[in-house]
Amino acid sequence: MARVAARPRHRGSGLTPEDVAAVTHFDIAVIGSGSGNTMLDKRFRDTKTAILEEGTFGGTCLNVGCIPTKMFVYGADVARTIESAATFGVDARRDGVRWPDIVSRVFGRVDPLSEAGEHQRDVLHSNVALFRGHARFVGPRRLDTGTGEVITADQVVVAAGSRPIVPEVVRSAGVRYYTNDDIMRIPELPGHLVILGGGFVAAEFAHVFSALGCRVTVVVRGEKLLRHLDRDVSARFTEIARERWDVRTSRTVAAVREDAGGVALTLDDGAQVTGDALLVATGRVPNGDRLDAAAGGIELAPDGRIVVDEYQRTTAEGVYALGDVSSAYQLKHVSNHEARVVALNLLQHAWADPSVLTAADHRFVPAAVFTAPQIASVGMTETQARASGLDVAVHIRQYSDVAYGWAMEDTEGFCKVIAERGTGRLLGAHVLGAQASTVIQPLVQAMSFGLDARTMATGQYWIHPALTEVVENALLGLDL
Amino acid sequence: MARVAARPRHRGSGLTPEDVAAVTHFDIAVIGSGSGNTMLDKRFRDTKTAILEEGTFGGTCLNVGCIPTKMFVYGADVARTIESAATFGVDARRDGVRWPDIVSRVFGRVDPLSEAGEHQRDVLHSNVALFRGHARFVGPRRLDTGTGEVITADQVVVAAGSRPIVPEVVRSAGVRYYTNDDIMRIPELPGHLVILGGGFVAAEFAHVFSALGCRVTVVVRGEKLLRHLDRDVSARFTEIARERWDVRTSRTVAAVREDAGGVALTLDDGAQVTGDALLVATGRVPNGDRLDAAAGGIELAPDGRIVVDEYQRTTAEGVYALGDVSSAYQLKHVSNHEARVVALNLLQHAWADPSVLTAADHRFVPAAVFTAPQIASVGMTETQARASGLDVAVHIRQYSDVAYGWAMEDTEGFCKVIAERGTGRLLGAHVLGAQASTVIQPLVQAMSFGLDARTMATGQYWIHPALTEVVENALLGLDL
Repeated sequence: MARVAARPRHRGSGLTPEDVAAVTHFDIAVIGSGSGNTMLDKRFRDTKTAILEEGTFGGTCLNVGCIPTKMFVYGADVARTIESAATFGVDARRDGVRWPDIVSRVFGRVDPLSEAGEHQRDVLHSNVALFRGHARFVGPRRLDTGTGEVITADQVVVAAGSRPIVPEVVRSAGVRYYTNDDIMRIPELPGHLVILGGGFVAAEFAHVFSALGCRVTVVVRGEKLLRHLDRDVSARFTEIARERWDVRTSRTVAAVREDAGGVALTLDDGAQVTGDALLVATGRVPNGDRLDAAAGGIELAPDGRIVVDEYQRTTAEGVYALGDVSSAYQLKHVSNHEARVVALNLLQHAWADPSVLTAADHRFVPAAVFTAPQIASVGMTETQARASGLDVAVHIRQYSDVAYGWAMEDTEGFCKVIAERGTGRLLGAHVLGAQASTVIQPLVQAMSFGLDARTMATGQYWIHPALTEVVENALLGLDL
Repeated sequence: MARVAARPRHRGSGLTPEDVAAVTHFDIAVIGSGSGNTMLDKRFRDTKTAILEEGTFGGTCLNVGCIPTKMFVYGADVARTIESAATFGVDARRDGVRWPDIVSRVFGRVDPLSEAGEHQRDVLHSNVALFRGHARFVGPRRLDTGTGEVITADQVVVAAGSRPIVPEVVRSAGVRYYTNDDIMRIPELPGHLVILGGGFVAAEFAHVFSALGCRVTVVVRGEKLLRHLDRDVSARFTEIARERWDVRTSRTVAAVREDAGGVALTLDDGAQVTGDALLVATGRVPNGDRLDAAAGGIELAPDGRIVVDEYQRTTAEGVYALGDVSSAYQLKHVSNHEARVVALNLLQHAWADPSVLTAADHRFVPAAVFTAPQIASVGMTETQARASGLDVAVHIRQYSDVAYGWAMEDTEGFCKVIAERGTGRLLGAHVLGAQASTVIQPLVQAMSFGLDARTMATGQYWIHPALTEVVENALLGLDL
């Protein structure tokens, strides 16, 4: 992929050469082809639109994020299930793992989607011009497309995403390292994968590679993995992780060097960690710093995010931002939601008219980590809830307390719910265990629509013996 | 188990001989130790209670229903996962299935629970007398305990459950056959299991035994399996079933005989089906016909169910019924709900006082079939919705339309939603596919609390890329 044209490319099969000269001004210009692209549905079919993309078409989620990672994760889940089969009286043996086939399965599906998306915009949609270069602002709503041309637009959307952070100690060492951008295409499974970082990217890839037979070492600065999550989730997951991987907590990297075709890390306690490959998963930064945002009148927050208000408006008139480049949540479903909001505001030309502006709703944003076991959460952690000054009730129910958990022989999973005493208002929910990303949805729904814990538990049926009973019982256990 | 005493047994460790003489009258008498037993929580600790049970303590769900079957099913799911592993680049081989270990795993867990439950009532709880015999009414709130004694009670609860139907053609043939009561303890896996019936019991055991390596033939009277479910679910499931099992639809059994240590069935078209074991799964009848209900003033419906009103009151003063013996739903979660309702009414002595009577809520009752793939449904089928005269919108979204479905390489699953056009009121939902019993819960919740389809879809976040997106997209696809 990565077809960056040397010459101006603002194609669109229906455009004549005369049109092309004319389209240096657009109705809408969108920087980024992830959520910024899918936002442009049929309502925009008569809108002269420029899409500016320097990388692979389709953005992080499709190419190097949610979609391919979950395809790897599901295969890893299958591999882990085989390991557990004997517990259920089924003796099974793993004969081997075909890594190249795994990679092909995933990217044989994803790459054509990226290509088809690009083809659609580049060739099929006559109202769209696609610029394949590095975009930057050269004035208010004025963009250098990175392909040798400057364009202007009535309305601009910055949906330029984020990129992996690579610590200086790694970058300056000159060693080969991977990030989520390329680890999924590593030529062969490493015997031993060293992962730097303890967040969700680290947790997911540690699961994938260990389930496929690799030894995994995780080096993390904090005392726990996934430490941004509720403390019980983080603590339980760290325990589980220690049983499967070599987990080095409270450690930083002092030095990195090549070693026998792999990497050798010296940690701050002097320990040496050597591996066949290094995955850097120390977080992601928004790409706002790469856009000459100031030239466009766009303010950045100290953490690099583009500043937006509740309507996704930046500080520059007519310019919106959405997704990782501006969001506190680096989550595709948040980006999708923001894109829907921005689309409405674009269609309404609402920038300066509060009466028609649509606001984004960031009240109850769930998130999942597709590691093993799965993790999902929404709302406050217990620590946040207690710090809020509210009178808080907390209850944890183990998967092993419900019939489906017995069936699964589960010993790890739990559902934790946090509510306000008195009102029963749900403040947060945290699930660690099989199907967590599904199990949590009724709790997201209850919080979003103001259903209190008691009414939620008792006012509906919960299928017996489905896994959802763990939610029902967690709610019933709250001392409200 | 099945400890049926020859002599009166109304033990209760705290009872003196004098007490025993006195307790022929009870505050409450409960026939059945399933939901009728779990109903009696600590609020009843000072209530003189009789529990009458002729079979294994704990009822159908614990001993021969939901709990053990789901333990078998989960193991079968694991076995199926191994079969599918190659799709995900993981080569695996099944070396064998240890049936005795599977049985031990399940009943090593279930049997002690039954025994502990009995011990608790029989020995630990001084307010409870346990009668281990076949109970029947000999007058209003007057019961022959089946242990040589007659008791009376202020309030009576009939929670006597249901039993498998065995067609006359099987019963009269004198062949060995199994039902859900004993198939799970069959001494060894049959090479070929013949299943009579096409409902949920048939669908679950067909999955279990075929996943564990048995050949399965299903003989069913109707044109489809699971024909009480929505027609799309029934049709898709029947297709899937035909790929895995020998499915003989629109067939009845003309004759049954023993054959070389197994069974031979002659079908109505003359075809011969021979197998190593026969599972009869042709439905269950309520046990109301075994209680001399008329002597207690209790009316039975033509289908054998005890007639109850919305408060679970029978036609006999002071007598309630709950669960399979009286319910149109043979579902444990319904039975649990009814038990909670009856408990409140008992505690309030509410029988004759409508002002304090609590009603049961049977509006939105979900049900799941734990076969492969899982199936769950709530509310109306499409056929029912169209017959209702409402202006109906229907949308089906395939699992393969969402990212998690891609990850799973799913080709079977779907979510079907049915709503009233205009209002968006949800009328029914039907899910066939992985995790169906969990996936459906937000829809149950929405229906129970009156959340319309559009608001449900757009007013909350759906984690990307979780399986729940299939629900979001099904809702969004409705032409309301």
